[in-house]
Amino acid sequence: MKIKIINPNTTQRMTETIGAAARAAAASGTTIVAVSPLMGPVSIEGHYDEAMSALGVLDEVRRGEADGCDGYVIACFGDPGLLASREIARGPVLGIAEAAMHVASLVAGGFTIVTTLARTQGIARHLVAQYGMRDRCRGIRATELAVLDLDRPGGAAYRAIREECRRALAEDGAEAIVLGCAGMADLATRLGGELGVPVVEGVAAAVKLVESLLALGLGTSKVGELAHPLPKVYRGMLEGFAPGRPDRGA
Amino acid sequence: MKIKIINPNTTQRMTETIGAAARAAAASGTTIVAVSPLMGPVSIEGHYDEAMSALGVLDEVRRGEADGCDGYVIACFGDPGLLASREIARGPVLGIAEAAMHVASLVAGGFTIVTTLARTQGIARHLVAQYGMRDRCRGIRATELAVLDLDRPGGAAYRAIREECRRALAEDGAEAIVLGCAGMADLATRLGGELGVPVVEGVAAAVKLVESLLALGLGTSKVGELAHPLPKVYRGMLEGFAPGRPDRGA
Amino acid sequence: MKIKIINPNTTQRMTETIGAAARAAAASGTTIVAVSPLMGPVSIEGHYDEAMSALGVLDEVRRGEADGCDGYVIACFGDPGLLASREIARGPVLGIAEAAMHVASLVAGGFTIVTTLARTQGIARHLVAQYGMRDRCRGIRATELAVLDLDRPGGAAYRAIREECRRALAEDGAEAIVLGCAGMADLATRLGGELGVPVVEGVAAAVKLVESLLALGLGTSKVGELAHPLPKVYRGMLEGFAPGRPDRGA
Amino acid sequence: MKIKIINPNTTQRMTETIGAAARAAAASGTTIVAVSPLMGPVSIEGHYDEAMSALGVLDEVRRGEADGCDGYVIACFGDPGLLASREIARGPVLGIAEAAMHVASLVAGGFTIVTTLARTQGIARHLVAQYGMRDRCRGIRATELAVLDLDRPGGAAYRAIREECRRALAEDGAEAIVLGCAGMADLATRLGGELGVPVVEGVAAAVKLVESLLALGLGTSKVGELAHPLPKVYRGMLEGFAPGRPDRGA
Amino acid sequence: MKIKIINPNTTQRMTETIGAAARAAAASGTTIVAVSPLMGPVSIEGHYDEAMSALGVLDEVRRGEADGCDGYVIACFGDPGLLASREIARGPVLGIAEAAMHVASLVAGGFTIVTTLARTQGIARHLVAQYGMRDRCRGIRATELAVLDLDRPGGAAYRAIREECRRALAEDGAEAIVLGCAGMADLATRLGGELGVPVVEGVAAAVKLVESLLALGLGTSKVGELAHPLPKVYRGMLEGFAPGRPDRGA
Amino acid sequence: MKIKIINPNTTQRMTETIGAAARAAAASGTTIVAVSPLMGPVSIEGHYDEAMSALGVLDEVRRGEADGCDGYVIACFGDPGLLASREIARGPVLGIAEAAMHVASLVAGGFTIVTTLARTQGIARHLVAQYGMRDRCRGIRATELAVLDLDRPGGAAYRAIREECRRALAEDGAEAIVLGCAGMADLATRLGGELGVPVVEGVAAAVKLVESLLALGLGTSKVGELAHPLPKVYRGMLEGFAPGRPDRGA
Repeated sequence: MKIKIINPNTTQRMTETIGAAARAAAASGTTIVAVSPLMGPVSIEGHYDEAMSALGVLDEVRRGEADGCDGYVIACFGDPGLLASREIARGPVLGIAEAAMHVASLVAGGFTIVTTLARTQGIARHLVAQYGMRDRCRGIRATELAVLDLDRPGGAAYRAIREECRRALAEDGAEAIVLGCAGMADLATRLGGELGVPVVEGVAAAVKLVESLLALGLGTSKVGELAHPLPKVYRGMLEGFAPGRPDRGA
Repeated sequence: MKIKIINPNTTQRMTETIGAAARAAAASGTTIVAVSPLMGPVSIEGHYDEAMSALGVLDEVRRGEADGCDGYVIACFGDPGLLASREIARGPVLGIAEAAMHVASLVAGGFTIVTTLARTQGIARHLVAQYGMRDRCRGIRATELAVLDLDRPGGAAYRAIREECRRALAEDGAEAIVLGCAGMADLATRLGGELGVPVVEGVAAAVKLVESLLALGLGTSKVGELAHPLPKVYRGMLEGFAPGRPDRGA
Repeated sequence: MKIKIINPNTTQRMTETIGAAARAAAASGTTIVAVSPLMGPVSIEGHYDEAMSALGVLDEVRRGEADGCDGYVIACFGDPGLLASREIARGPVLGIAEAAMHVASLVAGGFTIVTTLARTQGIARHLVAQYGMRDRCRGIRATELAVLDLDRPGGAAYRAIREECRRALAEDGAEAIVLGCAGMADLATRLGGELGVPVVEGVAAAVKLVESLLALGLGTSKVGELAHPLPKVYRGMLEGFAPGRPDRGA
Repeated sequence: MKIKIINPNTTQRMTETIGAAARAAAASGTTIVAVSPLMGPVSIEGHYDEAMSALGVLDEVRRGEADGCDGYVIACFGDPGLLASREIARGPVLGIAEAAMHVASLVAGGFTIVTTLARTQGIARHLVAQYGMRDRCRGIRATELAVLDLDRPGGAAYRAIREECRRALAEDGAEAIVLGCAGMADLATRLGGELGVPVVEGVAAAVKLVESLLALGLGTSKVGELAHPLPKVYRGMLEGFAPGRPDRGA
Repeated sequence: MKIKIINPNTTQRMTETIGAAARAAAASGTTIVAVSPLMGPVSIEGHYDEAMSALGVLDEVRRGEADGCDGYVIACFGDPGLLASREIARGPVLGIAEAAMHVASLVAGGFTIVTTLARTQGIARHLVAQYGMRDRCRGIRATELAVLDLDRPGGAAYRAIREECRRALAEDGAEAIVLGCAGMADLATRLGGELGVPVVEGVAAAVKLVESLLALGLGTSKVGELAHPLPKVYRGMLEGFAPGRPDRGA
Repeated sequence: MKIKIINPNTTQRMTETIGAAARAAAASGTTIVAVSPLMGPVSIEGHYDEAMSALGVLDEVRRGEADGCDGYVIACFGDPGLLASREIARGPVLGIAEAAMHVASLVAGGFTIVTTLARTQGIARHLVAQYGMRDRCRGIRATELAVLDLDRPGGAAYRAIREECRRALAEDGAEAIVLGCAGMADLATRLGGELGVPVVEGVAAAVKLVESLLALGLGTSKVGELAHPLPKVYRGMLEGFAPGRPDRGA
């Protein structure tokens, strides 16, 4: 099976980190294709970045459908374009916030999300509500690290995240940690070891969930809310993004 | 004050209907600018259309900020790009679903949303939850009219909508109707008269709310979730959409 | 249009402050009539005061219907008698807590209510739930100022409120402030300027919402929960408050 | 112990029915005092009636405190004046809707409320939310019987109620019935026998709960929301209702 | 009437404390039978203990049905086996967490639960949600006392609980205290006196509620969710626990 | 990896069906051990059956820990003993209701649960609430098939289930089906093909989720609610079930 990991931002170095995390998580029979879109922001730190990034995400899902991808992971904690992507995909599409929260709810009574900038807490809050996780989410904590600072050498980012996780365990009643940014994809194992609780990172979690859905023979429901978009005309620079007839490619 | 009404789809005839409804609702001192974006779908009937339309909506808000617009209305019942638009606007931005539901909650114990295609009910359901209207929304009913059929001559669309409204009053316990598509903007008054209950149409409702917020001196909070986007690079065909420094225009 | 602002308490000085705030907010074509009821408590600081004040509020709405008032604002943050008033009014009736919370939800991700005595926090909590604002309300903070202390000269009340607002922004994650008492009606602009976030004051907010509803041609639904009271006999000192036939005045 | 049953309406015949139901439920050591207020509507069928009736309810609680009553039951399904009454009572105060819903939740997975006029369904809906019963309430059904028709001879009212209960069991998944009007106080036993499920009537339920609280030594908390009203001046025809110092009577 | 109090743990000394509390609360005509099961844990401090204790609880309810018991109290704050017990009982069955929370909601705006070990907070959290008490529960506080330490001489446990209660009143906005362990059954009166707010202890509360339901003629609904178990074969060491035909004993 | 599938009932034929479904879903490197407990009901159709079955479930998890099992699936739609099992397992434990609902939420906007007897709908309702699925669950439908009738030859059960699924799609707005009984484990593929929507069966879903969690290196959090039970004495026939020190086996 072929799973496409879409890093909604256009920072290739981060796409590589994400791709490596996805490959490390994938089963032996799974092919991981990790891409950045052809267009969009270099990092996603708010609603505007997120809305803009959806164009590239959808473009990659469209290409993936043509290329025979079986499933998709949207590797940004705001899950940009998730429901729209489901409409144009035959197979499953998972967001990493969605994947991480569902997984965390299976191994702990409650979790805290540890994220980057405080300004993204509102996005996390919306997703907690949307995914039915109000009773599980004990806190949403910001480290005030910018997305592109996460992999700077020297480890200060790692230590800041670890300290915030420790506060979550001590003050929020958290029993697990959800990492709130795809840029943290390579930190989960080490953090989990040091903290002694499950640390859930969404890229790996989403890869396993997509593999699971595919193994179960489950794709996105094409009845109702997530049915293929109706064919229609798109104008201007979006002309090429118009949905076609589903049997002829999205 | 100058309020820009953005019809997120690119069907000019519908923009004209919406603009007329907005002008009819506006106070005498208000200038209404009604536009379709330069790019995007001719109608919005699902998550994919909606996500794609956000690009054009945001483009129009950016232009509006440069042009001295004081506030904005996003005239599609899915409120595409609403939170992202708030980030780049100094003044208020309202979605018509948001406006219509808040207004309906002020004049009735409960309302039913009467919308177009059943496939859009999921979108309405998400918005009901997001706006805190679960206790107020008694039903979401589809007429199975396509958006662009709404203004076809002959009145069949009007009659279908009216019959669905009557079922809502009889079967859902609705005490008011929320019209679930900007394409119904010119039907509210006649429907209200025939049904004998408040019929709330979002374009007019949003215009009045934006005027109200402006009169109150209230713009979008720039602290926290809705702060101006961080300046950064955007790549590819979105290069020109990158957020700049707020004091230099979005 | 004529809007009647009912200060549910009988302290005339406060009615004047409220009336001034209402007039400052009103459109040029709006006539504001600000009254205290003929009967009731000099301030409202709990459920008992509030229940008692409803009599005077309803009396004023009844008189307003006879006098040709088009809409009403109930200017106490507990919104006393709101749903009952809607039953006897043809036009819209808004409470200031309701108005302020809805307005705040349109310009910020979340808000904190800053109110007077801690004993009134329970009332605010009920209203937050009733208006669907649980996801938006980040805190309800008491200043322990009594209602009638708000306008004492010297500015200590202002400073206490401002400090509580600052704590709300720093500790609650609030992105806007809702002022929790009609007696604070004249503080919003100055507070907003000093705090740098939207500060929503309910009297002005409610005036704009009533004007908006009237401009939209929307009155209270007379179907279902808010239909005109059934004509019946009232006994004792309430004899004169019995609802009559709606077409003959309430 | 002495428990005062306050029928918020002023129809003495109904007070007698209610008093009889209360006495039938009361323990041998309990003295039941059943009263109608000196003022107020002859029946309560909406928010206006309810708000108006609170004056009489509170007057009776005040008198009861002076007369050494230990607890109170407010015998109207809208629970008018409940929280206000708690402020001025030392002992417990129960509303019959509150009592009936809590009791029903203890003996069945879910219940349907069977009430009088459809216009009162909104009131029941608010109480269901306020009392945390959303997961338990399977339906709110109106019989379109007026309150004062309930005890008309001939049994048509009884049969109409019984048929509505049967529909609730068959269609709503109800496992118990909550009777939604104090005027149904004498029907519960017979209905329960014929329907074969618990039929909960609030007057009897509230009497037992008040007795229970008294036996447990529990009165209303005087800390926070339900503390005694602050002493202050009331004006006009409400002058005599001003709260005094609690140690000198309400 | 005969009410069986089942202490789900097998520590007889604690059963005696519980039995004494139940007898002190019971009406003069009530016979209290307080038992520990024949099997199970000596204390209950987590989900495993709780699930295991359900066997003994159900065994005691089965015996109680054969012995003519009219109602039951499950005297552990996790309410183990509550819904299962209701299936096999004709009369009412109450858990002490359920009883205490419902009772506290009748006398205060909000309460905090003060319990034993922090590891049991998750159990309390589930029950708060299940009983519709999310709006009422202001906190769940652990004292880190083990269940069997509660009655150790010297009073350290009492003082620790009292201090935690004081913090709840000062920091949570609690207006009443719910004691979160049956082992605290003898502390409520003294605590209530010292704290000046209602302190609700579940054993006494449940006894009064069961008496109330019995006086009202209400047993567990045998329609739907709580109907008598279907007769069937049980295997192995549970063979003797198989449900029989209800008319022949459970 | 070795995953133990525990059929909480003691009907071996059903265990074989479940084991076959689990094996069909498992990855090539996964060893599936499917067992019935040594004790317990032959089918689970209510709270009593479920509470009783927890003993056997927990016994099997204890044995599994000693035998080196890596994870567990509890194969009954009531998820009996789930949280207790998590306390004694190092690795992940999934219930099939939990697994099926989470999986369905990833591929459809909303689902309906199609189950066996109407008396089990209450159990499903509790789980929907517990797992945060209120916004996703569109209905819970009973076929009135007994658990042990599901695999009777002749296909009547299959047809009844399929018809109920069709009604769910037509009447509830369901976009996917969740099968509400482990006895339906072999029907999902055929149903999915005939209905044209995702049909989620919990046994296979849970196997994939447990495999996923194991691959992610995630076990149950041992901090807080799900920590290993405290070592203590159990009495009577449960003596051998007492939790020991975790490092010496459960």
